[in-house]
Amino acid sequence: MASGCRIGPSILNSDLAALGAECSRMLDCGADYLHLDVMDGHFVPNITFGHPVVESLRKQLGQEPFFDMHMMVARPEQWVKPMAVAGANQYTFHLEATDNPGALIKDIRENGMKSCPCCHPKVQLGFVLPLLQVGLAIKPATTVQWLRTQFPSLDIEVDGGVGPDTIHKCAEAGANMIVSGSAIMKSADPRSVINLLRNVCSEAAQKRCLDR
Amino acid sequence: MASGCRIGPSILNSDLAALGAECSRMLDCGADYLHLDVMDGHFVPNITFGHPVVESLRKQLGQEPFFDMHMMVARPEQWVKPMAVAGANQYTFHLEATDNPGALIKDIRENGMKSCPCCHPKVQLGFVLPLLQVGLAIKPATTVQWLRTQFPSLDIEVDGGVGPDTIHKCAEAGANMIVSGSAIMKSADPRSVINLLRNVCSEAAQKRCLDR
Repeated sequence: MASGCRIGPSILNSDLAALGAECSRMLDCGADYLHLDVMDGHFVPNITFGHPVVESLRKQLGQEPFFDMHMMVARPEQWVKPMAVAGANQYTFHLEATDNPGALIKDIRENGMKSCPCCHPKVQLGFVLPLLQVGLAIKPATTVQWLRTQFPSLDIEVDGGVGPDTIHKCAEAGANMIVSGSAIMKSADPRSVINLLRNVCSEAAQKRCLDR
Repeated sequence: MASGCRIGPSILNSDLAALGAECSRMLDCGADYLHLDVMDGHFVPNITFGHPVVESLRKQLGQEPFFDMHMMVARPEQWVKPMAVAGANQYTFHLEATDNPGALIKDIRENGMKSCPCCHPKVQLGFVLPLLQVGLAIKPATTVQWLRTQFPSLDIEVDGGVGPDTIHKCAEAGANMIVSGSAIMKSADPRSVINLLRNVCSEAAQKRCLDR
């Protein structure tokens, strides 16, 4: 079984002028990790923030919180070291953004981070399979389901539109790292939403365990 | 004479996890405007932040503060509208990053912002001269001096290493918009530093006025 169900709020839709306070609020509400969206305006048509912001966050939040960096950037190779130095824990990169995912994964690990290749739903599964020993973030529920069957202990992260209305599908398919943005950030009671997401996810994982 | 001497702290070296609070602190200390460095990791080897952060800052700080966006990005054309919508007041772009500065300036103005073409010291002055009706940010003191002689009412901004040790040279050359980073942000008494920079700048401007 994958190592527990974890909920990682995506802070993209929060008050970016008070990012440290927003992250603290999420951790106080029981977030298991923080999902931080890095965009460079080239890989995607938006610029969010880069490693200087991560460095400030790490200083403010201390060593404990787990930072999952979602690198929506061109040439993800170039930010591995800066992100590691800034205090990132996981480097989630897009397979379609690199020519040599194997070398990138090696570099991420050598820099002390967990590597997490990810892809958009339209990317073919065949493109992903060779990398399955190294962790994987992917979107469509059917693909997650297939992956979970094949790899019971793999961390599988889902990201995009996940909230109370969609968590059951993700959880039953087998995702164990749950990224959720507005559903948590915009809630009047983020703690309840986080608990709900985690409970649904854990129950599905237990059921899978019993079924095996 | 240019419209007064103004001091714009660059918040790049501040606590980026609490950017709103850092900007408020600078405004409380008498900053005339805020100089916000946008980097995309392509034009320069760093990613700072983009218009979503500016939008959050504008919400937190209200309509009053003047935001000078220093766009260290490739294809600066693409962020004009998003930055205007986010609440930017001045769009400072690099001449070497665009093929058509005239069209860009027009677009910036049509989006309700002040346009400010800028360049690195190594960029030739001849490249800049055709644009001199539209405001200019530039570095070396000798160039600033020449420009001030030719264009008494032009806003000229200097950025990079400006502090109590270097302000006299900038002020005497004729700069009237002073960007200063660490010298202000890292000071135990930012208010005094801001006042000192503004006083030196204003005295030099008055002297120029009397000399004419």
